[in-house]
Amino acid sequence: MPIRTVVWGENVHEQSNETVAGLYPDGLHGAIAGALNADAGIEATTATLQEPEHGLTEDRLAATDVLIWWGHAAHGEVADAVAERVVANVWSGMGLIALHSAHFSKVFKRLMGTPCGLTWREAGERERIWVTNPAHPIAAGLPPCFELENEEMYGEPFRVPEPLETVFIGWFQGGEVFRSGLTWRRGAGNVFYFQPGHETYPTYHDPNIRQVLRNAVRWAHRPQPRVAGVADAPNRPVEAALEPIEERGPKLHRKGEAGFR
Amino acid sequence: MPIRTVVWGENVHEQSNETVAGLYPDGLHGAIAGALNADAGIEATTATLQEPEHGLTEDRLAATDVLIWWGHAAHGEVADAVAERVVANVWSGMGLIALHSAHFSKVFKRLMGTPCGLTWREAGERERIWVTNPAHPIAAGLPPCFELENEEMYGEPFRVPEPLETVFIGWFQGGEVFRSGLTWRRGAGNVFYFQPGHETYPTYHDPNIRQVLRNAVRWAHRPQPRVAGVADAPNRPVEAALEPIEERGPKLHRKGEAGFR
Amino acid sequence: MPIRTVVWGENVHEQSNETVAGLYPDGLHGAIAGALNADAGIEATTATLQEPEHGLTEDRLAATDVLIWWGHAAHGEVADAVAERVVANVWSGMGLIALHSAHFSKVFKRLMGTPCGLTWREAGERERIWVTNPAHPIAAGLPPCFELENEEMYGEPFRVPEPLETVFIGWFQGGEVFRSGLTWRRGAGNVFYFQPGHETYPTYHDPNIRQVLRNAVRWAHRPQPRVAGVADAPNRPVEAALEPIEERGPKLHRKGEAGFR
Amino acid sequence: MPIRTVVWGENVHEQSNETVAGLYPDGLHGAIAGALNADAGIEATTATLQEPEHGLTEDRLAATDVLIWWGHAAHGEVADAVAERVVANVWSGMGLIALHSAHFSKVFKRLMGTPCGLTWREAGERERIWVTNPAHPIAAGLPPCFELENEEMYGEPFRVPEPLETVFIGWFQGGEVFRSGLTWRRGAGNVFYFQPGHETYPTYHDPNIRQVLRNAVRWAHRPQPRVAGVADAPNRPVEAALEPIEERGPKLHRKGEAGFR
Repeated sequence: MPIRTVVWGENVHEQSNETVAGLYPDGLHGAIAGALNADAGIEATTATLQEPEHGLTEDRLAATDVLIWWGHAAHGEVADAVAERVVANVWSGMGLIALHSAHFSKVFKRLMGTPCGLTWREAGERERIWVTNPAHPIAAGLPPCFELENEEMYGEPFRVPEPLETVFIGWFQGGEVFRSGLTWRRGAGNVFYFQPGHETYPTYHDPNIRQVLRNAVRWAHRPQPRVAGVADAPNRPVEAALEPIEERGPKLHRKGEAGFR
Repeated sequence: MPIRTVVWGENVHEQSNETVAGLYPDGLHGAIAGALNADAGIEATTATLQEPEHGLTEDRLAATDVLIWWGHAAHGEVADAVAERVVANVWSGMGLIALHSAHFSKVFKRLMGTPCGLTWREAGERERIWVTNPAHPIAAGLPPCFELENEEMYGEPFRVPEPLETVFIGWFQGGEVFRSGLTWRRGAGNVFYFQPGHETYPTYHDPNIRQVLRNAVRWAHRPQPRVAGVADAPNRPVEAALEPIEERGPKLHRKGEAGFR
Repeated sequence: MPIRTVVWGENVHEQSNETVAGLYPDGLHGAIAGALNADAGIEATTATLQEPEHGLTEDRLAATDVLIWWGHAAHGEVADAVAERVVANVWSGMGLIALHSAHFSKVFKRLMGTPCGLTWREAGERERIWVTNPAHPIAAGLPPCFELENEEMYGEPFRVPEPLETVFIGWFQGGEVFRSGLTWRRGAGNVFYFQPGHETYPTYHDPNIRQVLRNAVRWAHRPQPRVAGVADAPNRPVEAALEPIEERGPKLHRKGEAGFR
Repeated sequence: MPIRTVVWGENVHEQSNETVAGLYPDGLHGAIAGALNADAGIEATTATLQEPEHGLTEDRLAATDVLIWWGHAAHGEVADAVAERVVANVWSGMGLIALHSAHFSKVFKRLMGTPCGLTWREAGERERIWVTNPAHPIAAGLPPCFELENEEMYGEPFRVPEPLETVFIGWFQGGEVFRSGLTWRRGAGNVFYFQPGHETYPTYHDPNIRQVLRNAVRWAHRPQPRVAGVADAPNRPVEAALEPIEERGPKLHRKGEAGFR
């Protein structure tokens, strides 16, 4: 069965900015889905901010293996309930790939537990992306480095938790560096952040970028069933203890009572 | 200057449960502060849920090096604004030590980005805490293991992100194990979770536990000044680029405009 | 193509100790290979200390996706050249699974860079292995915990570097705990240590243990080609610089000269 | 008591190369020790390859809190026994700071368990070092970035294990990036690698570099006593078990026998 992937796009500048509309007539989400569907093992569809529930109903997320998130101007318009729903699905095993300005999206910040800031400059400068971890599946098939003639500069410090692994580091013409590809796990969900992708440049038409996106979906995919009850705190009563013990000492909880939350 | 430490206590069961009141006449927070003040390098005061702003005003947190958090029955009564304020202070460099049932506190869950669940049993069973990382400062002066004759069982899986380091693992008489001491960093703040401390047992009177608390405060303390602007995303304009570059390509942002959030 | 797996066995106690010979008539390596070959996606063969070059020639290792290592009494008899050869193959992408007493094998110690000690007791006590990371591929299909009625106790502190992830923790009847399943990467190679497997007990006939072994092979397998030149330090001369630069300042190296090692 | 620091220098090019001798009349080790001794809390002395036992006797290492290592042309001339002695002292709690070309030193490679290669170019190009982890003690007092007008280029991939934390990333004029400051722990010892320091440039006279060196010594210093028996694997016999157990099952070891290594 192919990896069921949903590409979520904010779809704002595609409607309001001629440059963006010209570069991405099917939306950034459409271009990204196109890159993914070139891989027979991936089945990518799209969802946007403007759809009911932003296109991310409980049913749809339950049937999603990997979610890709692109947002920029309208982070604040994403309903809190939908953001929490996405987060809960990551915990139970859905992969999440946060692209570019999604560093400030509700879902990414919520999963990181940090502010996720950085420095930035929109000057169309050259970025060269270096593979720091050539053995990582997300770097499969890539050259040692590749260039984007125009990208938005994102600079360190990137205010995220220390990652599981650093896959890419970006070099910028104006003198900055950035950890452009980082991985984490949150619950059962694999999380990847990938920095390139400013909407006024043709980044998502670049063959290396498209390769990274496909690799990332395959890496983030977890073939096992979703983990149930990931947010629970089950009581394991004394009668069910794996080693025989006797109840001792004063108690707070009555028998069968749920714990405090 | 001593390490300015605030011990935050929920102070609920101390008022409503005779056993707890008997064990901790000055509150759990009072007992913990007492353990800390035995170290001349630490100056511990207390704050409780019932005080205005839960005793955690902006001014007080700005003057706090390390915050210790004990809560259980009333996590939901902590105001969101105060929880966010605590989180922001951790990001800028305040240390945080989350004790026992604080695994489900708003502040700890918010910093972890995961559900923070576990399994549990209140049966007064024996726990033996093993030092897995004897070289870690939080384990300084401890024996290879030590026992608590009565503790609440907390069992794996503990739903937190992979830690920076695992300092302690607990063995429970009823057959479970738990990663009882774990560290993370969130922004400039050091975070430590320590599992023992159920309110119906005399855990905070145990000399080894008190040693861990003092060690943890010293570890979590960051002597450098607070980091300013930790949640910002400053623009670094083309004129200020460190290497000379020319502006190229189409733009989204007007000169001097702030970024989207 | 199935995952080409070699199970390396020291094959000493199988020849000299009646209990071990009785439990493992085909050797521990034979029993382990049998567990793996129950998975159609794995093709496991064996190699032993007594074969020329311990059965691990350069050609064979080049054609091995994952190597499993079981050794105990004869760590010192493994030729240094063969141990180094194994290590170099891990660096270039061969997976390595070190079992039980292989914590003190030359190959594992060499890859860790630490002494890899622990405490131990051979008393046939009960071990209960807890899954701390239920979402990890190595834990796929396992219950929350499982028991081995007789195992050798291995206790903390386990003197290894902080792992990438902690998958299992063992509870011992005599009161100890142990991080029983840990992962690392070394170069392009995935490394997994798994603690159970004392030769006088039927551990490798246990269905859960056999499931872990199969899962671990699948996790350790890296489908990409081996990384060439992993131990090189190539010069990238000024004429080949990706950004135009002029040579400046005094030099140590003549043009085309190799670096020091 | 000040932090007892030994700066080990290979002291080869200082004797044979006029540029190096001119820049560092007291040797690179002398310049580095000078930077450290500007901090009243550090007491730095030096040792060189040419001294008996390379100046690193067992007694001296036992009285060393932090060892700094600079070597380049003569890695192969360091006696294996001395390298192993250094490694064992790191395990028991001595800090180690490996500078620049020490990435290929015996001691650093031994502690990493990986080849430690990189790419390089000696062209006197500009390097700009970015602080990626501004809250880390090794970055205390530094600006967001600083420049070295001439440095040797070291480029990714740097073949080391994933670090505990990434403190610095270097930007090179010729287009490369490098993780210039990384931390690990090995046993009880803190390990820091710092990339700048090519001997034909005045790097160790730069105020920011000297600040990093002082910060790194303070970070690597572990005030607790050395850990004894770090390479042991002690037996904990059944009579001494912490929970009462009975010996069961067949045995390999006779009572009191040492384990295999």
